[in-house]
Amino acid sequence: MYVLHIDVTDRKYPIYIQRGILSDLGKRIPKTYSKQKIAVITDDLLKEIYGDQIEKSLQEAGFLTKILSIEPGERSKSLETAAFLYDELLDFGINREDRILTFGGGVVGDLGGFVASTFLRGIPFIQFPTTLLAQVDSSIGGKMAVNLKQGKNLVGSFYHPQLVLIDPDLLQTLDKKYFRDGLAEVIKYGAIRDEDLFFRLLDRYDSEEDLLSDMEFIIYRCCGIKKEIVEKDERDKGERMLLNFGHTIGHGIERAFHYERYTHGEAVAIGMHEITKRSERMGETKPGTSEEIRKILIKYRLPYQIPDLDKKEFLKHIQHDKKALGEEMHVVLLEEIGKGYIQPIKREAIQKYVMD
Amino acid sequence: MYVLHIDVTDRKYPIYIQRGILSDLGKRIPKTYSKQKIAVITDDLLKEIYGDQIEKSLQEAGFLTKILSIEPGERSKSLETAAFLYDELLDFGINREDRILTFGGGVVGDLGGFVASTFLRGIPFIQFPTTLLAQVDSSIGGKMAVNLKQGKNLVGSFYHPQLVLIDPDLLQTLDKKYFRDGLAEVIKYGAIRDEDLFFRLLDRYDSEEDLLSDMEFIIYRCCGIKKEIVEKDERDKGERMLLNFGHTIGHGIERAFHYERYTHGEAVAIGMHEITKRSERMGETKPGTSEEIRKILIKYRLPYQIPDLDKKEFLKHIQHDKKALGEEMHVVLLEEIGKGYIQPIKREAIQKYVMD
Repeated sequence: MYVLHIDVTDRKYPIYIQRGILSDLGKRIPKTYSKQKIAVITDDLLKEIYGDQIEKSLQEAGFLTKILSIEPGERSKSLETAAFLYDELLDFGINREDRILTFGGGVVGDLGGFVASTFLRGIPFIQFPTTLLAQVDSSIGGKMAVNLKQGKNLVGSFYHPQLVLIDPDLLQTLDKKYFRDGLAEVIKYGAIRDEDLFFRLLDRYDSEEDLLSDMEFIIYRCCGIKKEIVEKDERDKGERMLLNFGHTIGHGIERAFHYERYTHGEAVAIGMHEITKRSERMGETKPGTSEEIRKILIKYRLPYQIPDLDKKEFLKHIQHDKKALGEEMHVVLLEEIGKGYIQPIKREAIQKYVMD
Repeated sequence: MYVLHIDVTDRKYPIYIQRGILSDLGKRIPKTYSKQKIAVITDDLLKEIYGDQIEKSLQEAGFLTKILSIEPGERSKSLETAAFLYDELLDFGINREDRILTFGGGVVGDLGGFVASTFLRGIPFIQFPTTLLAQVDSSIGGKMAVNLKQGKNLVGSFYHPQLVLIDPDLLQTLDKKYFRDGLAEVIKYGAIRDEDLFFRLLDRYDSEEDLLSDMEFIIYRCCGIKKEIVEKDERDKGERMLLNFGHTIGHGIERAFHYERYTHGEAVAIGMHEITKRSERMGETKPGTSEEIRKILIKYRLPYQIPDLDKKEFLKHIQHDKKALGEEMHVVLLEEIGKGYIQPIKREAIQKYVMD
């Protein structure tokens, strides 16, 4: 087992990373009074597989439970689904001393966390991420959100869980497409901050079983990097931008294809390689770096090249950045593998970093 | 002019209290870059009266502005109206460096503040409360919220403005019913923390003009008391309960009459007198205190007696308290005028404090 302690304004909380921790769920959650309630927010597919096990474990530990299940998929990350969950929480009679447990991937975590942050102006919640992407990324950092029809994550909050539980064994049954989706973010952590992790991924694992058996450690390293960065820049005003390596082009690709053809991780994979190819050419990155990235992406069957797309449209999507202030933008580049940095640029200079 | 500085976790901000400050609006708001936008959230009635003046003042100071107007009244404090405002903010192209200004009473402030706290995970906002109740109460403390059909303020956040501007001159045109609504909370501050303020209100002002001419000072005192209490207990877990003096019975009355017959202030007025009458009888309050409260409420034409109502229903409304944990509740009592205290009681003991 690995443990990390996240220390942010107003809140300290632990992350436990342990194979098989799901079977121990009820015992892992501190109980503060008798008849304490836990509302479990999850999706219909996960409920089918794990619902009974979760309820049994929580009830054996003395909690009153109710499972609130949403349809799987990004479309559920909406104000409408949040309103449905508020109603269900009221029905269940949750108060501020009770708990919400989010059990799922990014959609469940972001939506459930947003609901926890706003119901009765915030009740404590526990995050149990079930996909690799959620385990290494969205479960740390306190960014909760829902989408509007105009775009993703436009409504949300900064709110931290009371506890995060990560069970790498859940990845064994995760659809391969979603597993690779998360691996792209794992590779990103190596690229921006951890040379050892990057080359371990590139050189060491010969099979998926081999990789899965080391997942406790890999997740621990990624969460550790995210912890360091988030603690320094909780509100996403500076260093946290480092985590956006590959995301400028990645978001452009996702938007250009209406989030349909590429997963987030696939789009980020392309973004990491393409921006590094260009920064290398401009002398801002050590020669050979983009080739290392290309090799690792091929090894993990991730794409690395920008597909055919409408370039004007693509550029428009990239220049529309909710964090952009006035005429300035930022790109994240590598000095070399393991060393990312943030470069401020003029808005019009973005073109040379993202297309030929 | 009076100035207060609120110092809470993560945020320090000033409150300016000055007659006529509205005419100076544009100059009072710090501008951090050119073409900075301010979205003004207000209601249709206030827009009609002050809309042009506000836009002109902000535009002269170099801001781009748009007025987003909602229907007046509690029904607008909903998730649906929040969704409407998100759309309008996107239309106007607000980003995280722009500003929201809320100009109105409690509904506009609570709803607009909730929208500001969640749009793009939070953008800075300025609060300009226009009713006495909002000026002395809801504009300090960071409690933002919307209602659900099941009850008030069930969804919300803790979020502080960047700046609060209070113009007592706006009270001259405020409907008398709403002015008295706010006066009940002013009296409450005197009762729980400030003997001088209480007896000043009881003995000094002979006419409404007289009272209005001293409003800068009165608002300053009330905000000062709220500041002290909120700074000690930002998340409403202890001392902040003091502010609920009169509210246990008050909320029960409001709910029993479906928020229709009594304003919030009127219900609180009754609550202050009725609970003090009983605590005095039980020897927990200095003799004569409830009589002082009765006199001051009569002077300001506020009710002081529980009306005829279904007692069983009333008690049910009181026992349903979202802050209640398990079998314990709290009541706020006076030792004497100017000295409030919080008393924990068993849930079943509430009856003797609220009815005969």
